[in-house]
Amino acid sequence: MQNKKIGWRTSRFLGAPVIIGSAAVGGKKEGDGPLRDDFDILNEDSFFGEQTWEKAESAMQKLALDAAIKNAALAPSGVEYVFAGDLLNQCIGSTFGLRDAEIPFFGVYGACSTMAETIALACVSIDGGFAKNAVALTSSHYCSAERQFRFPLEYGGQRTPTSQWTATGAGAVVLSESGDASLPRVTHFTSGKIVDAGVKDANNMGAAMAPAAYDTLKAHFDDTGRAPSYYDLILTGDLGSLGSEILLDFFARDGVAIENHNDCGLMLYDREGQDVHAGGSGCGCSAGVLCGHILNAMRAGTLRRVLFAATGAMLSTTSSQQGESIPSISYAVAIETGV
Amino acid sequence: MQNKKIGWRTSRFLGAPVIIGSAAVGGKKEGDGPLRDDFDILNEDSFFGEQTWEKAESAMQKLALDAAIKNAALAPSGVEYVFAGDLLNQCIGSTFGLRDAEIPFFGVYGACSTMAETIALACVSIDGGFAKNAVALTSSHYCSAERQFRFPLEYGGQRTPTSQWTATGAGAVVLSESGDASLPRVTHFTSGKIVDAGVKDANNMGAAMAPAAYDTLKAHFDDTGRAPSYYDLILTGDLGSLGSEILLDFFARDGVAIENHNDCGLMLYDREGQDVHAGGSGCGCSAGVLCGHILNAMRAGTLRRVLFAATGAMLSTTSSQQGESIPSISYAVAIETGV
Repeated sequence: MQNKKIGWRTSRFLGAPVIIGSAAVGGKKEGDGPLRDDFDILNEDSFFGEQTWEKAESAMQKLALDAAIKNAALAPSGVEYVFAGDLLNQCIGSTFGLRDAEIPFFGVYGACSTMAETIALACVSIDGGFAKNAVALTSSHYCSAERQFRFPLEYGGQRTPTSQWTATGAGAVVLSESGDASLPRVTHFTSGKIVDAGVKDANNMGAAMAPAAYDTLKAHFDDTGRAPSYYDLILTGDLGSLGSEILLDFFARDGVAIENHNDCGLMLYDREGQDVHAGGSGCGCSAGVLCGHILNAMRAGTLRRVLFAATGAMLSTTSSQQGESIPSISYAVAIETGV
Repeated sequence: MQNKKIGWRTSRFLGAPVIIGSAAVGGKKEGDGPLRDDFDILNEDSFFGEQTWEKAESAMQKLALDAAIKNAALAPSGVEYVFAGDLLNQCIGSTFGLRDAEIPFFGVYGACSTMAETIALACVSIDGGFAKNAVALTSSHYCSAERQFRFPLEYGGQRTPTSQWTATGAGAVVLSESGDASLPRVTHFTSGKIVDAGVKDANNMGAAMAPAAYDTLKAHFDDTGRAPSYYDLILTGDLGSLGSEILLDFFARDGVAIENHNDCGLMLYDREGQDVHAGGSGCGCSAGVLCGHILNAMRAGTLRRVLFAATGAMLSTTSSQQGESIPSISYAVAIETGV
């Protein structure tokens, strides 16, 4: 078997799986934001026609899956695996969302890094010869996350300045072993390693996750020999404003100035006008930004090389109540056109 | 890329990854059961030296990982990925257990099917050319599961006759692209599909999961052309007594008599003497039975061909409280010696 690893953490996809379709789903707040025109589906109803917010999240996953498959001009029966996960306990956003899909399913848990983790695994399955087409899918919902991780919404608690706003959204990417030469392709992935810098403030996820993003991005640059400037965009998700500053500071200490960084949590909302404090977060934030705005720009040719490094904070309410710090992880995938 | 799929649901591993090491960890009740001699580590202390049951579960994952890597005669730096998950909210058994491991990590959520799901994904990564060595790992803990999913332990609630006992245990398998010819190898996997037959009783997981086990096993036999009798053992985990009956009944209706079935939930405990009602359950049940008893028997030559089909119930307390039924899934891996 040919070894595709080009370093301890990074592998090259020899077949460079093609993104033949994608779809982004959002709620009202996402539709009020600067990326509104890039969503495939926006719904003013935070329940998405369902009776509960958890069921609404499942409905969003189904909408994103169906729209992405349609955009890829595939039938559902043409998809061999769906890799999906979400933030809800036991990942019920995914399991109930995909219950009727009749597509083989791999459940994944990567917290807010899920969009990159599922893309990496879907590409491993395709490039490894186990599938022609596979889907990567995730979601989050402000209301289901808020009441699970923080407080009942009715309580109306104050939010700290470092807190981020969990996006209501879902995103799906359809990956294929072949496709039109103009489409974006996934060329590399860099695996995630759990990094815990000792941050205990569950209202400061950006600070908790920045060391993991640094660890993975540094591994990517080291393994590939690429400078950060190789990419048009180094896109983290979702460090928010504070986490992004910390990340750039880590690289600055290494003497590396990164000029081409942005963060999904800083892109999805108008931070001042929409009162989201340090920015957006949640699996649906990086998924919505990638599957809508970024992939649209890549298909339009305004972006050619994107390094997408989603980050996840692997805590639970129980771990925080027991005084634990926040282990974090980041997976990175290189998405390129014209390769 | 050579297509390794031999049917809609089943792939063949051309390199048949070798199980070069495994380890099973259990608690007091598991050490009182009939498989006591097959565990690598048994601990009378349900806290495993930690302050909480959740931290104890993480400690078990670390013990299982370290012991399996040692049994495989590898250094931790020789493992390229760990695929791991568990039942705790946000999979903190895995993320905290692996926090200091310095091994790239893929978080997986498959409920009690996790042992088979992680083996399948680890083999996909190896057989696809992305790793030489990878670990599949999972755990459960009676006390952390009971208080998360059911009642505080101090409440001392009565258990229904169909309920199963969540095992306190962890299991790890080290898979490699090569190894001694006498060792067990993973030759095939059959993907899981979410199946929901409408069962709503969260105290009857066996009934909820049996349709998923049937769906995956049937797909495996159809795709491979193998009769059930090809295997020395068809091992589900964990349907318990009622779920096992239902599974065999489904096959009987197809005119297929399965004589060589057993279930990890029926093997781990002395059902009568240890008061576990319908049997054992939890990720740690199938992991403990496979990584100890079964792989020991395969290494000793008393079992040669095992089809391991772990099953998971993809519910949460929230989904049950909202009146939902229980979506389930089963992943199957064929483990063989002398191939």
